[in-house]
Amino acid sequence: MQTFTSIKAMQDWCKEQKRAGQTIGLVPTMGYLHQGHMALVGEARRNCDKVVVSIFVNPIQFGVGEDYEDYPRDLEKDSRMLEQGGADALFAPAVKEMYPPGYSTFVEVEGEISAKLCARSRPGHFRGVTTVVSKLFQICLPDQAFFGQKDAQQVMIIEKMVRELNFPLRIVRVPIVREEDGLALSSRNVYLSPEQRQQALVLNQALQLARETIQAGERDPAQVQALLVRTISASPGAEVVYAEIYDAADLTDVEQITKPVLIALAVKFGTTRLIDNLIVEV
Amino acid sequence: MQTFTSIKAMQDWCKEQKRAGQTIGLVPTMGYLHQGHMALVGEARRNCDKVVVSIFVNPIQFGVGEDYEDYPRDLEKDSRMLEQGGADALFAPAVKEMYPPGYSTFVEVEGEISAKLCARSRPGHFRGVTTVVSKLFQICLPDQAFFGQKDAQQVMIIEKMVRELNFPLRIVRVPIVREEDGLALSSRNVYLSPEQRQQALVLNQALQLARETIQAGERDPAQVQALLVRTISASPGAEVVYAEIYDAADLTDVEQITKPVLIALAVKFGTTRLIDNLIVEV
Repeated sequence: MQTFTSIKAMQDWCKEQKRAGQTIGLVPTMGYLHQGHMALVGEARRNCDKVVVSIFVNPIQFGVGEDYEDYPRDLEKDSRMLEQGGADALFAPAVKEMYPPGYSTFVEVEGEISAKLCARSRPGHFRGVTTVVSKLFQICLPDQAFFGQKDAQQVMIIEKMVRELNFPLRIVRVPIVREEDGLALSSRNVYLSPEQRQQALVLNQALQLARETIQAGERDPAQVQALLVRTISASPGAEVVYAEIYDAADLTDVEQITKPVLIALAVKFGTTRLIDNLIVEV
Repeated sequence: MQTFTSIKAMQDWCKEQKRAGQTIGLVPTMGYLHQGHMALVGEARRNCDKVVVSIFVNPIQFGVGEDYEDYPRDLEKDSRMLEQGGADALFAPAVKEMYPPGYSTFVEVEGEISAKLCARSRPGHFRGVTTVVSKLFQICLPDQAFFGQKDAQQVMIIEKMVRELNFPLRIVRVPIVREEDGLALSSRNVYLSPEQRQQALVLNQALQLARETIQAGERDPAQVQALLVRTISASPGAEVVYAEIYDAADLTDVEQITKPVLIALAVKFGTTRLIDNLIVEV
């Protein structure tokens, strides 16, 4: 596996691959890799000739007081995992390489899809995401780019951006990877105390309860939401940031659950904010 | 020359060219072509294997009350000119192809460069430009894209966008093409009455006067600006929108003219707004 820190060197390598007729799969990450990321790499490996993984903790998608400085980093371990996972290239630029002094160009998806869920509690977050992902697309020239369903709103916004800006590539959603006890894998799980780690199981439990309720015939999203909040709040350390139900296609509101819905949760345990979600079809 | 109205067909054609090892030169236009545009096509012809010209009057770069509806259009004549000029492909999409219902993704270059000159009199204009140019870059996959120096601020903003979003392409600036009497070519010149057409010569005359004054030793931009305003205002039908002098590299303010400056004018004749500019080196 080759490692690049320069935009130009990475872009030249990708251009060279394209000229040689190779397809490129890109897996954008913030590093501190876990099996969720490796599922993305595996999917890219199966779909594309060359797999590029980017590791970049993107400062402009973090708000003031969020965990940008503290976000866990371990480039050496990540690099070993990617080597074993079959990645061909690792792109790990410095912040000043991606955002040189005077940087002022941004890509933004506006509208309802960007005004809900994480957008409400993290203003500016998705603008930072769409900007960095646009840059990574131009640098790595992927034919396919792989994103986890764990960040459901993020992948929906990126899909809309790709469609509307006409990026010549396909977005592939990869299912959430969970621990055996149901906790969704996240680089932020490392922040949890052993007690919080146990309490955090309530996210998946609440999602499963909501699914069962809908499958048993409940069609009122307000009832499902009340159940979610009740379930999560019963866990002593959990503070609900949001627990909401939207149209799984475009995040519009639903009055009656008559088509696939996205159930999305954000819950804080102390200072650690976890997200999880589930698409339920009826 | 092949003509495309569908994004997918145009993008597929461009991908095919790239796969065959051909370089692509893109000339984005709003049509109603004149010899200024044809100079861009000629430059693209000399630099690239395949030349793609887009013709799209981009609604999102026009403000309320501007001339979007009235903007001159003549696709048949344009098509003949491009055929003779050696273009390989014409991309002429409908508005709903470029901006389908619910469209909400925008690319914006913020900062000083986007807060002056035309940005002041046309709020939102450059956001419309950078958004449509981003889309055209994704659709046409150019190795080089050709823009006229006539729209000096536009090309500077696009250069910054390309640099900061890491588009894998080179921007080529092509000099202003003028009539024999000095009027810069513009699709909007067609709006001018014979009398206004004569009055409009004052733009180039003012620029030349300013250049001579600087070359004779004037270093105070305020003095040069006063000269510009005085010269233009002496023409009976002319109303100065702006007449300004900035650093030619980045549009920052200059206190003393000690490096190349951009002298930029916007002047209205009745309802017709013309722009012109000149870079003066010292």
